[in-house]
Amino acid sequence: MDNFNFYSPTEFVFGRDRENEAGEYVKKYGGSKALVLYGGGSAVRSGLLDRVKASLAKSGIGTAELGGVQPNPRDTLVYKGIELCRAEGVDFILAVGGGSVIDTAKAIAAGVCYDGDFWDFYCGKRVERALPLGVVLTIAAAGSEGSGDSVITKEEGMLKRGTGADVLRSRFSILDPALTQTLPAYQTACGATDIMAHVFERYFTNTREVEITDRLCEAVLITMVKETPRVIADPNNYEARANIMWAGMVAHNGIVGVGRSQDWNSHGIEHELSALYDCAHGAGLAVIMPSWMEYVYKHDVMRFCRMATRVFGCQMNYEDPEATALEGISRFRSFLHSIGMPINFAELGAREEDIPKLVEKFGIGDGKTGGFVSLSAEDITAIYRIAVNAKI
Amino acid sequence: MDNFNFYSPTEFVFGRDRENEAGEYVKKYGGSKALVLYGGGSAVRSGLLDRVKASLAKSGIGTAELGGVQPNPRDTLVYKGIELCRAEGVDFILAVGGGSVIDTAKAIAAGVCYDGDFWDFYCGKRVERALPLGVVLTIAAAGSEGSGDSVITKEEGMLKRGTGADVLRSRFSILDPALTQTLPAYQTACGATDIMAHVFERYFTNTREVEITDRLCEAVLITMVKETPRVIADPNNYEARANIMWAGMVAHNGIVGVGRSQDWNSHGIEHELSALYDCAHGAGLAVIMPSWMEYVYKHDVMRFCRMATRVFGCQMNYEDPEATALEGISRFRSFLHSIGMPINFAELGAREEDIPKLVEKFGIGDGKTGGFVSLSAEDITAIYRIAVNAKI
Repeated sequence: MDNFNFYSPTEFVFGRDRENEAGEYVKKYGGSKALVLYGGGSAVRSGLLDRVKASLAKSGIGTAELGGVQPNPRDTLVYKGIELCRAEGVDFILAVGGGSVIDTAKAIAAGVCYDGDFWDFYCGKRVERALPLGVVLTIAAAGSEGSGDSVITKEEGMLKRGTGADVLRSRFSILDPALTQTLPAYQTACGATDIMAHVFERYFTNTREVEITDRLCEAVLITMVKETPRVIADPNNYEARANIMWAGMVAHNGIVGVGRSQDWNSHGIEHELSALYDCAHGAGLAVIMPSWMEYVYKHDVMRFCRMATRVFGCQMNYEDPEATALEGISRFRSFLHSIGMPINFAELGAREEDIPKLVEKFGIGDGKTGGFVSLSAEDITAIYRIAVNAKI
Repeated sequence: MDNFNFYSPTEFVFGRDRENEAGEYVKKYGGSKALVLYGGGSAVRSGLLDRVKASLAKSGIGTAELGGVQPNPRDTLVYKGIELCRAEGVDFILAVGGGSVIDTAKAIAAGVCYDGDFWDFYCGKRVERALPLGVVLTIAAAGSEGSGDSVITKEEGMLKRGTGADVLRSRFSILDPALTQTLPAYQTACGATDIMAHVFERYFTNTREVEITDRLCEAVLITMVKETPRVIADPNNYEARANIMWAGMVAHNGIVGVGRSQDWNSHGIEHELSALYDCAHGAGLAVIMPSWMEYVYKHDVMRFCRMATRVFGCQMNYEDPEATALEGISRFRSFLHSIGMPINFAELGAREEDIPKLVEKFGIGDGKTGGFVSLSAEDITAIYRIAVNAKI
């Protein structure tokens, strides 16, 4: 096991109706005037925003409000939020939404405390200070409610880049599974795919003898394989929603990936798809991740056999382990298809002729990247090509 | 899933030689003068204490020192520590040791900030304030490095009682698996048993459809079943030690037990044994936990079948599920025996004739206790009786 630090100081507030406690928690963590940040109209239409604002008012918290966060959230709204916070004297950011809203909240929180351009943080500059922030989560997916990470897209040139820092971790995150019951099946499945991808990026490692984190990874994956079809079949299944929502946090707050090398190439390869086509990150991952697996599995056949048998219930083929590895990948892709995810370029709305552009924007030049298998621009091209024609 | 809060703000600092960073972390978390608290002479003899003190000196942290914490730690040393902290103007407690040292550190941390008798906190009074504390862990067992809990024994009458509060959570915990390589096999096995018991207390639940935490529990248990025999066979196996050390934290910081009812009767029933005979808590659990399982398994045969098949590798007997449940319990007891743990009263040094005294000290009178199966004094007597004659 490699040396590591693990620090996850967020207070998680989980369960039915907990969003009505938002005001108490903003107060507990020192806020007196909060920017309430949200996305499209669903938080308004459902009455969630009104309930959250009522809770803030009850605790004597002043508010400013900013809506309109888009999927693949843009730098333009971040600038607007920073300006608003400064003008209104905001001392706390409350994100009401999913990963895009939370990531935007983190960017604003850092930007308010910085004299320069917040985009510097997404080009390698370290975030030293940020306003405190809280979360009311509305979709189980990004895990941003329990991580210090943020991904923002620069509208000019559609550059998608990330940053991360402990000061960007939410002080509290309210997770009410009932809020996810109104999500369309497609978004639910995109979220589930993202959760599984967060685990797989950590699961595929070159670090030996890390049984505890291997098993924790498998615990989350097995749960997702069991629970996701249940919410697709019955969106109102609170218990299945609850299991997925907590799995989403566990998948990405770091606990299942400490002490081991991680990969993260599938995320990078996908980011270019969602940046170019503005598709959902989870949908892009459904296309890329099994294709990446097919390209790299020979690097460690036994690890893919482990995934195949433990996560997807394959029987181990002791005469032909590669067959088991491939069957596991195939079952993963079939699983994604069964929950309504795209599995190739056409289903995603991507174009084969854009591959050179995607690879160029990925921007590794003559370099290589990735913690499990180190990939060149040529390798990445090959993976996009597998994804073009993928079938179940 | 039940509503819950989960809050684990401790910074975990894991890996080889990390104890040499103790000074930096005390400083980071606001300490200027630390009480260095430890147990017997092993921390002195091994040179660990000197290295920790050198690290503190390097960071300009002043120190006071208190050794002599015993297993089943006593109130008498807590009073001594509180007095010393006040006399020396200590503002930070650094526990160098295992569960007993950490639990004592927590008691001192709370006691220093309280005008009354610290024992009040172990009789139900809520801990509101405490000095900040840090940990350098030397045994994987109690999980106290990641929890807000503390158990202290009142020497007068040997009353063993616990308390818990978020302010008692360590600010940082340094976990260097190499420090555990010098532990005798018996203590290593006691620690492993305690870790497994912490999971089982949470695993046996009446809450339905909590797949994510069920799977996380199993992840820790499977890891312990795999890794424990490896360290018993080879005490210097760093990788196995590392897996166990992290498993011990995960087992008890709360993450595997949120959102579900828990039991905790085995811990209560054991506490009377270690209080009366001053035996190791883990050894007492090895005697009690399988006996408790045999007494309660009919309450939920399928849950015991799940344990038997997933944790202990039994084949499910679909014609006779009870046989599978019993085989799982039997394999657990055999496992404990195989790692050198006592499995009955005689092996522990306990006496059948003391059972009435043990039950009386347990102190439930005509009441009942336990979150999985509610037990009366009569039930607890029966469990002690099973433990008297347990065999593999």
